[in-house]
Amino acid sequence: MFKIKATENRARRGEFATIHGTVQTPVFMNVGTLGAIKGAVSTMDLKEVGCQVELSNTYHLHLRPGDGVVHDLGGLHKFMNWDRPILTDSGGFQVFSLAQLRKIKEEGVYFASHIDGRKIFMGPEESMQIQSNLASTIAMAFDECVALPAEYGYAKQSAERTARWLVRCKDEMKKLNASERTINKKQMLFGINQGATFDDLRINNMKEIAKLDLDGYAIGGLAVGETHEEMYHILDVTLPFAPEDKPRYLMGVGTPVNILEAVDRGIDFFDCVIASRNARHANLFTNNGYMNLNNAKYERDMRPIDENCGCPACRNYSRAYIRHLFKAKEMLAMRLCVLHNLYFYNHLMEDIRTAIEEGRFAKFKEEKIADFSKRL
Amino acid sequence: MFKIKATENRARRGEFATIHGTVQTPVFMNVGTLGAIKGAVSTMDLKEVGCQVELSNTYHLHLRPGDGVVHDLGGLHKFMNWDRPILTDSGGFQVFSLAQLRKIKEEGVYFASHIDGRKIFMGPEESMQIQSNLASTIAMAFDECVALPAEYGYAKQSAERTARWLVRCKDEMKKLNASERTINKKQMLFGINQGATFDDLRINNMKEIAKLDLDGYAIGGLAVGETHEEMYHILDVTLPFAPEDKPRYLMGVGTPVNILEAVDRGIDFFDCVIASRNARHANLFTNNGYMNLNNAKYERDMRPIDENCGCPACRNYSRAYIRHLFKAKEMLAMRLCVLHNLYFYNHLMEDIRTAIEEGRFAKFKEEKIADFSKRL
Ligand SMILES: [Zn+2]
Ligand SMILES: [Zn+2]
Repeated sequence: MFKIKATENRARRGEFATIHGTVQTPVFMNVGTLGAIKGAVSTMDLKEVGCQVELSNTYHLHLRPGDGVVHDLGGLHKFMNWDRPILTDSGGFQVFSLAQLRKIKEEGVYFASHIDGRKIFMGPEESMQIQSNLASTIAMAFDECVALPAEYGYAKQSAERTARWLVRCKDEMKKLNASERTINKKQMLFGINQGATFDDLRINNMKEIAKLDLDGYAIGGLAVGETHEEMYHILDVTLPFAPEDKPRYLMGVGTPVNILEAVDRGIDFFDCVIASRNARHANLFTNNGYMNLNNAKYERDMRPIDENCGCPACRNYSRAYIRHLFKAKEMLAMRLCVLHNLYFYNHLMEDIRTAIEEGRFAKFKEEKIADFSKRL
Repeated sequence: MFKIKATENRARRGEFATIHGTVQTPVFMNVGTLGAIKGAVSTMDLKEVGCQVELSNTYHLHLRPGDGVVHDLGGLHKFMNWDRPILTDSGGFQVFSLAQLRKIKEEGVYFASHIDGRKIFMGPEESMQIQSNLASTIAMAFDECVALPAEYGYAKQSAERTARWLVRCKDEMKKLNASERTINKKQMLFGINQGATFDDLRINNMKEIAKLDLDGYAIGGLAVGETHEEMYHILDVTLPFAPEDKPRYLMGVGTPVNILEAVDRGIDFFDCVIASRNARHANLFTNNGYMNLNNAKYERDMRPIDENCGCPACRNYSRAYIRHLFKAKEMLAMRLCVLHNLYFYNHLMEDIRTAIEEGRFAKFKEEKIADFSKRL
């Protein structure tokens, strides 16, 4: 399933085989919460910007249109017309960040929908059942994402419960993958490491879940308010206890610099909404630095966003035109910028992969961090 | 410039040669008010849905980004990356429908911008200068569009003033097309017939402006509240006095049925925002009737919007998916539906052209009107 083709220090260049095709890692997954990338980006567009893995949100799709509907229509791939891998999160993060009137018990979480207040219960089994209905390529285990800074006692208790939930997730998926009505009987499971910012909790939790022989291991509960240094430190202390031969996914991270730093520490999978969210506010990543297209200095700038970018926006439109579209509140502005930022992220990962293969990732990383720290 | 290739009764199948390519008529122009089609539709998308002529609004572009900016950047074609014909309206309609504190004088109109209240003067010369800066393929004459129902005395006075303005427009364009700084020195001018719903005013005005040997003749001031029968009647009485050898443009019209009726009366050019505006509200035109995708009965409908449609939305996505996108407020919903409706309109025109060529337009019209009157 996961084959490491090259390494450079802790950085890994791998291939992850799935029933929906092979993923070249390190990879950045493109976030389409409700089965579509925000900014009027179609799945044809996604292929054009080099997306390998689409990520959809279990909690959101459970509420709308309902995972039962998606199952009856043939699963998420067919529903959204996407034939490459899809990773679904477990719903845990949204239950803990969006839902109201939350009550956490050993069996799972009771909460109210953020849309209509409807009471819902979700535990490990329910999360697996929903993700099985969605028929994603990779399902994430149901976990509790503790708010930071966390109290040690609570973080310990929560991480231990999440580990117990993981065993239940694994059992439930085994059952589901054996069921006749299941669309993707080869669905994979990634476990999630928790433990807030406490080294010993993180390490003990990772040692515990490593025994379960899962398809992949995620680091969860980061990028939620801690400093970058704290995040890198957690990776440094925790990853040595993650199985070498399984992909590692740093959830919800991050900026291009974060990604370079995390690859350098042995991470293989990433996802983050900032690529598309920033784009919708005219904030763009380029090889020459970060830029905001609303700036008046671009009013008559007929150059593309990035002269070295091959994305549909840069191949066809100027800074002046896209800036005008933002000022005029034309939706096309957002779409073009989302296409650019996703292309930028997906191609950054490609460059990272090549750099590791060629044994020059350390140098590549330093140069890129210098470039990305500029502001245009 | 305009060559009639076939006729069937009053319906005409023509070719209109411009410096930006030849337009096959009857044609439906796709409205991109601010230099972009609403719904995140790019100019690449426009080609895919068969758009021949893009229409932009002079008043809007004058305010944002400013026609001076567009001129300095090489004109609207270069600015928005569109190499086929562009028609710009004169700004008249928006001055009379959007602007505030309006004062009409012989020299032109004093008004306040609807965006920031800034005081602006626009007369025939200013409208031509702005359109010359935009460098559109076809410029429209500056006219007053009288609200309906109109008082006879005012309608007469206004139509006569609009005719005097037309002479000034023609003179100004001649000057501009001879100027060194002009981007499109082959810009064409269409005059606009006015006269509210009064037969004699319409006829006298058309006789008057027909003498000016313009590149085309538009019927303005319709589709602003009168009945369809009144509109068709005005076409019946006025068009016999329009030059046979020049294209005729019915401004702001209309539904597919309106278009069939107007083609039958000798109209060659159309534009209307309903194709894209209705799409943004999930209202779709199909060969089997009109449908609203928000209807609950489409929740699990995996068929495309229209099984006989070759648009990007119908080739790739289901009613169930697009309906879900509307419910989830995903912008992609609007884009897919705008693509469908524009494709529908552009291909309806293609079918109309073939029907006239093959001498079966009368039958085609009756069948299509029956189909389009259904509700799915
Ligand atoms: Zn780009
Ligand atoms: Zn279609």
